[in-house]
Amino acid sequence: MACSFYFTVLSLSYLPLLFQATVGSSDQQMVVAQSTPEDHVFKIAIFADLHFGEDAWTDWGPEQDVNSIKVMSSVLENESPDFVVYLGDVITANNIPIANASLYWDQALSPTRSRGIPWASVFGNHDDAPFEWPIEWFAAPGIPRLLCPVQNSSYSILGEECSFRGTSRLELMKNEMDNNVLSLSRTGPEGLWPGISNYVLPVLSNDKPLVHLYFLDSGGGTYPEVVSTAQADWFKHVSEEINPDGRVPELVFWHIPSKAYRKVAPKFRIHKPCVGSINKEKVAAQEAEMGIMKILVKRPSIKAVFVGHNHGLDWCCPYRKLWLCFARHTGYGGYGNWARGSRILQINDDPFSISSWIRMEDGSVHSEVILS
Amino acid sequence: MACSFYFTVLSLSYLPLLFQATVGSSDQQMVVAQSTPEDHVFKIAIFADLHFGEDAWTDWGPEQDVNSIKVMSSVLENESPDFVVYLGDVITANNIPIANASLYWDQALSPTRSRGIPWASVFGNHDDAPFEWPIEWFAAPGIPRLLCPVQNSSYSILGEECSFRGTSRLELMKNEMDNNVLSLSRTGPEGLWPGISNYVLPVLSNDKPLVHLYFLDSGGGTYPEVVSTAQADWFKHVSEEINPDGRVPELVFWHIPSKAYRKVAPKFRIHKPCVGSINKEKVAAQEAEMGIMKILVKRPSIKAVFVGHNHGLDWCCPYRKLWLCFARHTGYGGYGNWARGSRILQINDDPFSISSWIRMEDGSVHSEVILS
Repeated sequence: MACSFYFTVLSLSYLPLLFQATVGSSDQQMVVAQSTPEDHVFKIAIFADLHFGEDAWTDWGPEQDVNSIKVMSSVLENESPDFVVYLGDVITANNIPIANASLYWDQALSPTRSRGIPWASVFGNHDDAPFEWPIEWFAAPGIPRLLCPVQNSSYSILGEECSFRGTSRLELMKNEMDNNVLSLSRTGPEGLWPGISNYVLPVLSNDKPLVHLYFLDSGGGTYPEVVSTAQADWFKHVSEEINPDGRVPELVFWHIPSKAYRKVAPKFRIHKPCVGSINKEKVAAQEAEMGIMKILVKRPSIKAVFVGHNHGLDWCCPYRKLWLCFARHTGYGGYGNWARGSRILQINDDPFSISSWIRMEDGSVHSEVILS
Repeated sequence: MACSFYFTVLSLSYLPLLFQATVGSSDQQMVVAQSTPEDHVFKIAIFADLHFGEDAWTDWGPEQDVNSIKVMSSVLENESPDFVVYLGDVITANNIPIANASLYWDQALSPTRSRGIPWASVFGNHDDAPFEWPIEWFAAPGIPRLLCPVQNSSYSILGEECSFRGTSRLELMKNEMDNNVLSLSRTGPEGLWPGISNYVLPVLSNDKPLVHLYFLDSGGGTYPEVVSTAQADWFKHVSEEINPDGRVPELVFWHIPSKAYRKVAPKFRIHKPCVGSINKEKVAAQEAEMGIMKILVKRPSIKAVFVGHNHGLDWCCPYRKLWLCFARHTGYGGYGNWARGSRILQINDDPFSISSWIRMEDGSVHSEVILS
């Protein structure tokens, strides 16, 4: 039997906070993936912390972006996912001295786009940050000549092509959406701004709801690192409206771990019930907990939360009745030299199950875990 | 004898780092002050840390700006200075959600402008900072309605009139210069950017050099809090070129104290040889020392450095052969509730001397000190 997955675009009465958009045509549904006849699975690859555009003024900066593309390509070839989630810190905006950082953001999307795979993205704390001037530049006789490659040529710091104020979340997201029919990202309800990446993507399988994917903006960069009370309220209202009896399983994606991650973090080695391969640093949690976790743990349909941010952590641990998972550092940008990879989620339709593992750049697989 | 003071606008061979500009007409000199016949003094009032635009979304924010204007007015009435120095943190840009923060900058200039007194300004760490979202806004059910008074009406956060990225130093300074014939501020040599307020104003008395006023950008906000090596080199070259035999006394103004201030800071009470009235906090020094102090101490013509930044310090202390002075917190904006005032400098022509005292808002005077 052929098995089709759809993302619905919902038109709901809960306004003005509810995600509202039309994707592609006026059709209320859009096919985003059609699996092969023999499987009944919907597979997601998570690309976390790519950090494109880092050290843009050196040779090794652009070189590591090439390496990050190789990681993504390897994962996509090995896994053939139906969908990709860009889990924030797509770019290192604080290293990007140009007015439109979408140039780098777009490079990060290219391996997925070139394979015709749809995706959604959320923001991390580095994506809209203003330029950070390295202090060592001020000890030198002068600021180095900066390359601001907007017009495909080189410009010094004095050229108008250079800009140091970062590109706003809203611009980045609009640029992604405007230029990519495969992007299912949204700019979120205006009532939740300055947080932008707040939206839900219901996935259908054979015209029945399979799973609801929630994306939340955990802040950072130009505003505090939090999931706000308003976001929590929005989540509660939307989830209760589109999934009132909790029959549809729900997964949540944001960038910065909530404080609850600290409670379940393994102290040294990763041991049961946690599953993972690296536990090399402390959880760098959001600045405050403003209610989202309380709502999530009370809702049995929530199966797991996925975050990035900590490059040296890749575990999943249970927390009450749901799982708190780290992705795996995918990019060569960003701190840390742990081998690169991608957390994969596989959602089976019938019987329903969610499993996850980590696919490494070298093709190896580890840390498989059943999340429901 | 009538005694006239002039600021010269120099056209020097040391390019491209040297301040070059024409002020007013093509005339190479501009009268900026003419003292009364009976005195031979050139008097400067320093307005430090005014912090206009703070808490712009509340009632007491705008109210404290009114109070700051009262402080400046009181000082100007009591002292009738020939010149004013705005010593940075003129505005609290991190509280100003509008695209052009010059609106607030301009308010801070108004008491001086309305009295026809010329001025110069330097940047502090708060002047070009991007908007800082208060974390408590995210705990509330929603972000408060922000007033972005660009078009003389109220706009919510969603209006395009609101902007959260700050106004650049270059824009602020250009706006000041373009709209004020009394402003002697400059955007500094391009080779010293992103630092902007780097320039020298030679003051003449009866056509003879009286004193050279140096203004340096000590950074902060969008770039590190330092006086760079390039600025130190620039100062060295310019001062040696326009004052080769060191016969003209020189004064230096910047916002953030250098690390040398820590060395001379009184431990508890202010005692000789230091002079001042409050010593309520630790020196919040620049992030690094990159050479300017070494050059200053080697140059006998340098008499004193004046900084703001620390609202709870108002002392002058000797350091080698020059004086390191704090101004006095002038604004009702910014932390601290110590009574507001202004450091006054009086430069006597014949015989030459520099004295200084602090004039308080209530009209009282204290902490008089001879600086040469």
